[in-house]
Amino acid sequence: MRVAIPKEITESEQRVALVPQLVPALLKLGCTVLFETGAGNGAYYPDPQYQNVEFYQDATKLYQEADIVLKVEAPFENEISNLKEKSIVIGLLSPHRYPERVKALRDRHITSFAMELIPRISRAQSMDALSSQATVAGYKAVLMAASMTNRFFPMLTTAAGTIRPSNVLIIGAGVAGLQAIATAKRLGAIVKAYDIRTAAREQIESLGAKMINIDVKADASGGYARELTDEEKQKQQEVLFEAISKTDAIISTALIPGRSAPKIISTKMVEAMMPGSVIVDTAAIAGGNCELTQADKIVTHHDVMINGPTNLPSMMARDASNMYAKNLISFIELLVKDGKLNLDWNDEIISQSALTHEGKINHQPTREMIEGKS
Amino acid sequence: MRVAIPKEITESEQRVALVPQLVPALLKLGCTVLFETGAGNGAYYPDPQYQNVEFYQDATKLYQEADIVLKVEAPFENEISNLKEKSIVIGLLSPHRYPERVKALRDRHITSFAMELIPRISRAQSMDALSSQATVAGYKAVLMAASMTNRFFPMLTTAAGTIRPSNVLIIGAGVAGLQAIATAKRLGAIVKAYDIRTAAREQIESLGAKMINIDVKADASGGYARELTDEEKQKQQEVLFEAISKTDAIISTALIPGRSAPKIISTKMVEAMMPGSVIVDTAAIAGGNCELTQADKIVTHHDVMINGPTNLPSMMARDASNMYAKNLISFIELLVKDGKLNLDWNDEIISQSALTHEGKINHQPTREMIEGKS
Repeated sequence: MRVAIPKEITESEQRVALVPQLVPALLKLGCTVLFETGAGNGAYYPDPQYQNVEFYQDATKLYQEADIVLKVEAPFENEISNLKEKSIVIGLLSPHRYPERVKALRDRHITSFAMELIPRISRAQSMDALSSQATVAGYKAVLMAASMTNRFFPMLTTAAGTIRPSNVLIIGAGVAGLQAIATAKRLGAIVKAYDIRTAAREQIESLGAKMINIDVKADASGGYARELTDEEKQKQQEVLFEAISKTDAIISTALIPGRSAPKIISTKMVEAMMPGSVIVDTAAIAGGNCELTQADKIVTHHDVMINGPTNLPSMMARDASNMYAKNLISFIELLVKDGKLNLDWNDEIISQSALTHEGKINHQPTREMIEGKS
Repeated sequence: MRVAIPKEITESEQRVALVPQLVPALLKLGCTVLFETGAGNGAYYPDPQYQNVEFYQDATKLYQEADIVLKVEAPFENEISNLKEKSIVIGLLSPHRYPERVKALRDRHITSFAMELIPRISRAQSMDALSSQATVAGYKAVLMAASMTNRFFPMLTTAAGTIRPSNVLIIGAGVAGLQAIATAKRLGAIVKAYDIRTAAREQIESLGAKMINIDVKADASGGYARELTDEEKQKQQEVLFEAISKTDAIISTALIPGRSAPKIISTKMVEAMMPGSVIVDTAAIAGGNCELTQADKIVTHHDVMINGPTNLPSMMARDASNMYAKNLISFIELLVKDGKLNLDWNDEIISQSALTHEGKINHQPTREMIEGKS
């Protein structure tokens, strides 16, 4: 089994799918590791740290010789065209965002696995790349907000008087939101969290934050929330308006899988915030939780700064790659036995995460999106 | 008494010398407050928040009508030329950096007080602007390092394995260094601190950090350290080299008043650091503690990023202004009695902080620097 790690060519993607300390895990599985020169540079893993791998200067050749390709982002169509037929690609393939690439994978008879489709069952926890990368995003978003805010997060008692702590509001208490709560608490802020899933309360409170909610049950499958009704949305607006006007910094993290992010923070709410307040909208990649969010820009409106980073994990590429590579290795350990490929299609982890296989799109929602309902 | 607050015109200075919540304190002293339109904007204190002040569109007129001018940075010579003779200027006047401005203050018979010359006695603690601004700098420097580092500061135990905490080294445990220690600890890093003053040990350890030192007594007056001998410097290099090679992030804060910052981090040390490590050198304004530091730039050397911000408090202008304005008000309360100026030259706070008065440079080291020894 020749496992290849190409350099990510998506702009501003600094992560790498394999870190030096995990090369031995692949070798132990009987794999040979093909590594594109410089692929780890963005994450500050220079080539000399990768021991016992075969280095490739030429990405085309690397793709051509690979049985399995490990990626962060979905490969581009020109990368896919270099792949051997029936080879395997594993990555965060974002099928909703890149239907053309899914078609290319299908047409080239690639067996592709999308890490984000791995079911959230306990046996697959160590492969849960959405969670590992959301952990990075939640932490990084708080650092970003704290850096932008012009105010201290902690309370300070100094000879020049007492500085009150910042009020931080976390919207959405999934993995990213919970890590954001923990980080903002670490920094000493007063933290409130808003979530429409009743299941979130215990976790929010165990981290020492106060929960704001609207008394509806909106828990849906996979740990996500369902979309709200118009009436519920109205109620949400009222409850949030009150909280947001007293907030120095907001981290918003509310996502509905495969859909646009819910617009939770209206322009009117932003206008009610104090001058110098900040919003870090981690849902920017799906359009944002704030009406004013623009992808990868800092928008200033009424003296409130709204930052919409679309790839926070890449901004902390070293540890993000470390965690992501561990997720990949855990998954590969399922696929490879005694140095040979061993795809057990009865294993729900394998069957559910497969995006394309033998010229077909395996994942039903993606297939319906691309090929229509049959 | 007409007390004027002009807009700071130094490039990238966002602070303001008066915040809205302290206007009443000046009014209570019997002062009238003249405020330049927009002076608080950089610190996100918009004009409407300043109540019961007289707004001036024209800075020249504001200067001309002021009995006391409150500044952050030293006024430029063209600002000084607009001042009434014998009026008062109070600010962080940096006489070492701006001898021409000191001459202009002298020649115009301005009574100027430099906040950094206020003696560090307990009665003057509430006026200690060096400390209040260093507190901001220490906090902000850690946020900056955490944002640059590509790694988590805290230890994380996740389904994708354990992420080890970052090793952070704080060089210089003065006010900025201690705040940096506290902030890095808050974020969950393993923190070591280096200081050559034996007095620093207790404070470092009380914040939960480990002290590294070289067994010399280098305590000097005013809470600063003396310069080291060549032999001591050699010893310092050896001790630090060992520590630095295992460090993910360094915050350096070592300053000797009125001198260039000691060069503590050699190029060789930087080259021994791990790829992706970061240095935030808060001594950049005085040349930096690292040989590679460049003012207000991020230098990358051997995959180590060295950031040399020269005005960290301005980057957190809202709270920095809040604290600085409190320092100023405490000082003014000494100068003004029943709405009238009352300079008690027997008070060491007043006599020592006076930089120029009645056509003379009052502060001996500045006078010797500008006029030579007499």
